[in-house]
Amino acid sequence: MVYVSRKEHFNAAHKLYNPDWSKEKNEQVFGACANENWHGHNFELIVTIKGEPDPNTGFVVDLKKLSNLVRENIINKVDHKNLNMDVPFMQGKMASCETLVIEFWKILEPAVPGISETGHLHCLKLFETPRNYVEYFGH
Amino acid sequence: MVYVSRKEHFNAAHKLYNPDWSKEKNEQVFGACANENWHGHNFELIVTIKGEPDPNTGFVVDLKKLSNLVRENIINKVDHKNLNMDVPFMQGKMASCETLVIEFWKILEPAVPGISETGHLHCLKLFETPRNYVEYFGH
Amino acid sequence: MVYVSRKEHFNAAHKLYNPDWSKEKNEQVFGACANENWHGHNFELIVTIKGEPDPNTGFVVDLKKLSNLVRENIINKVDHKNLNMDVPFMQGKMASCETLVIEFWKILEPAVPGISETGHLHCLKLFETPRNYVEYFGH
Amino acid sequence: MVYVSRKEHFNAAHKLYNPDWSKEKNEQVFGACANENWHGHNFELIVTIKGEPDPNTGFVVDLKKLSNLVRENIINKVDHKNLNMDVPFMQGKMASCETLVIEFWKILEPAVPGISETGHLHCLKLFETPRNYVEYFGH
Amino acid sequence: MVYVSRKEHFNAAHKLYNPDWSKEKNEQVFGACANENWHGHNFELIVTIKGEPDPNTGFVVDLKKLSNLVRENIINKVDHKNLNMDVPFMQGKMASCETLVIEFWKILEPAVPGISETGHLHCLKLFETPRNYVEYFGH
Amino acid sequence: MVYVSRKEHFNAAHKLYNPDWSKEKNEQVFGACANENWHGHNFELIVTIKGEPDPNTGFVVDLKKLSNLVRENIINKVDHKNLNMDVPFMQGKMASCETLVIEFWKILEPAVPGISETGHLHCLKLFETPRNYVEYFGH
Repeated sequence: MVYVSRKEHFNAAHKLYNPDWSKEKNEQVFGACANENWHGHNFELIVTIKGEPDPNTGFVVDLKKLSNLVRENIINKVDHKNLNMDVPFMQGKMASCETLVIEFWKILEPAVPGISETGHLHCLKLFETPRNYVEYFGH
Repeated sequence: MVYVSRKEHFNAAHKLYNPDWSKEKNEQVFGACANENWHGHNFELIVTIKGEPDPNTGFVVDLKKLSNLVRENIINKVDHKNLNMDVPFMQGKMASCETLVIEFWKILEPAVPGISETGHLHCLKLFETPRNYVEYFGH
Repeated sequence: MVYVSRKEHFNAAHKLYNPDWSKEKNEQVFGACANENWHGHNFELIVTIKGEPDPNTGFVVDLKKLSNLVRENIINKVDHKNLNMDVPFMQGKMASCETLVIEFWKILEPAVPGISETGHLHCLKLFETPRNYVEYFGH
Repeated sequence: MVYVSRKEHFNAAHKLYNPDWSKEKNEQVFGACANENWHGHNFELIVTIKGEPDPNTGFVVDLKKLSNLVRENIINKVDHKNLNMDVPFMQGKMASCETLVIEFWKILEPAVPGISETGHLHCLKLFETPRNYVEYFGH
Repeated sequence: MVYVSRKEHFNAAHKLYNPDWSKEKNEQVFGACANENWHGHNFELIVTIKGEPDPNTGFVVDLKKLSNLVRENIINKVDHKNLNMDVPFMQGKMASCETLVIEFWKILEPAVPGISETGHLHCLKLFETPRNYVEYFGH
Repeated sequence: MVYVSRKEHFNAAHKLYNPDWSKEKNEQVFGACANENWHGHNFELIVTIKGEPDPNTGFVVDLKKLSNLVRENIINKVDHKNLNMDVPFMQGKMASCETLVIEFWKILEPAVPGISETGHLHCLKLFETPRNYVEYFGH
């Protein structure tokens, strides 16, 4: 088994704000991240596929196909968007990195077999800044 | 003369939108950057001071003082903010990187002599993404 | 389960020197790293917490709390220090990266439950240079 | 157990081309990577050893010895080479990253015990570009 | 005047080889870079435009237009190519970075006024590796 | 004229301490950098040569020769050293980056003509950390 990874990026606005709480409690819990006028990041998303290399191509997965899959299903829906307002699959959810990778997984995991015979989604790694990132393995 | 540089960062939301134009013209000119619900970036700001090293310290400028000066005068006003809505010195201006460095210069240039005997502001370099950046030398 | 990581840095001096050996044997084994007048590095420490996101915040752990915990318990004790001379928990130990992550683990592992309801320490990753690093998972 | 990693680099030419297929099929499957006049990359190879630190040195493995081992056995055979034409262990194989890490593993895995008492090869990670990479754990 | 920069990348094969010299002299002068079977790199090209920001857009130049200009005129001609064999404007020239930036300049300098009213090409910076790069200012 | 740059690195210990001042004044001025037991950094040094490319090689300067020149004259004297104690040309001087680049210039500037017919030293850029650096142009 070989693990193959592709990094994509998107630029987005968001805020961390629980609508069940007062403005004061949001500021107390989330600090500057609760700014009601939003802030934003250059996000980096690394998608890792695990599988057997195909002897005819040497590939677990064609990285151009993987890049296109991620761009069509994820990047086009979050790049230059407001993660709280513009993204259907984030409606009613906290716009944290933890939530984002779990929602991205639900979309990408069933789509990977369409581009790779033996590969399946192994990990999503999402950088919010060069110093803060999360990883999710599907469970 | 030695040039001394310090890098600081801030995370902010913005949009590129000219209020004198229709929504259609804004989208035509600025594309996804005109999204009315905002997007955002991890900005990196490099501040360069030019001067003679002080023989007692070996410093053109104490980088801790320079860092504090930039944080108090710039970073605290733009970090986790909306550059179009929350930043007084950007009111009525296009929230492009070109405009940002010119406005940052107006604030920092007169403040640098307060922390360095021989140094003056030489350059501001602002990264919007790792692939897009601007530089300004004050004229 | 989601894995959440925070990167911090510190600048420190050290040498690799076994006091039970002669100077010659130390130089033979450790080469330039045995220089008795010390050398140093910009270390980068990545702390990874594993846990369930809290539905109220979307967080496994508040990264500001994690950053403060790491700074108070680790960074303040090693930054701008001599790892052989100035750091109580390194006394009598080889100042290698392997030793450092094991000692950092002993300090951080019991402290993490204080800032996260479901999270616990999963991994410490320590870069001595951009080309040399170690990882420790607690066993 | 501590995991110790060393990053090395090499610059090489290659093409992705299956000699059992027509030129048209190669271009259809591999796109620009099938260019018969070659293209190339700055590859980065990260070698990870897993083991117990030796109490006399604090080391799982001496990173200078590991660097020398990787340079003599791998880097000297692929740096400034054509991976399809110049590298004996790649003859008759697809010059993909997946194939490269599997072949590198066969060479490095039996050599590691020669430089570390308790360590063995845990992972090879190969970057073809900063956005594309593969990992292999030996099975 | 503000300086605006955009980074693009391409992957290419090349060799350093003077056809007026013997194979021995080429190996003596260029070392491993003279390997007749080629080697290659991930090149990074930074294009810098100098000009006055347009008050209607806040832009010296629209970076999407600059990116497209560089991709159409340069990247499409060198990416996944052999710089010695496949690139018309490099025929009969040494495939060094110095030669490449001078030839890129001849193509880009007259094209920039087509995408920016006040801007002109200021600098080309070409990275062959993260440790080796050249810059050219047109004279 | 083309500018050609090469990056080298070294790991060293130092402290910022003026022996004409009391320990208290040193701590007041230099803060943690005055720690008498030293601290250290992974320094990165970028050496830039300006000259005309030689038509026979395409080179302003052979980067392997430049790398060797910098390693023999600078890196070998500062790598894995204490900049205050072990480096003859730093004796009696403040171990700041400003002082280091000026002293490096005195050594490298007269040596460059020995490896390049038309090139001369244009700039030295020294990173103490990824966020702090200095540049010197010889005057």
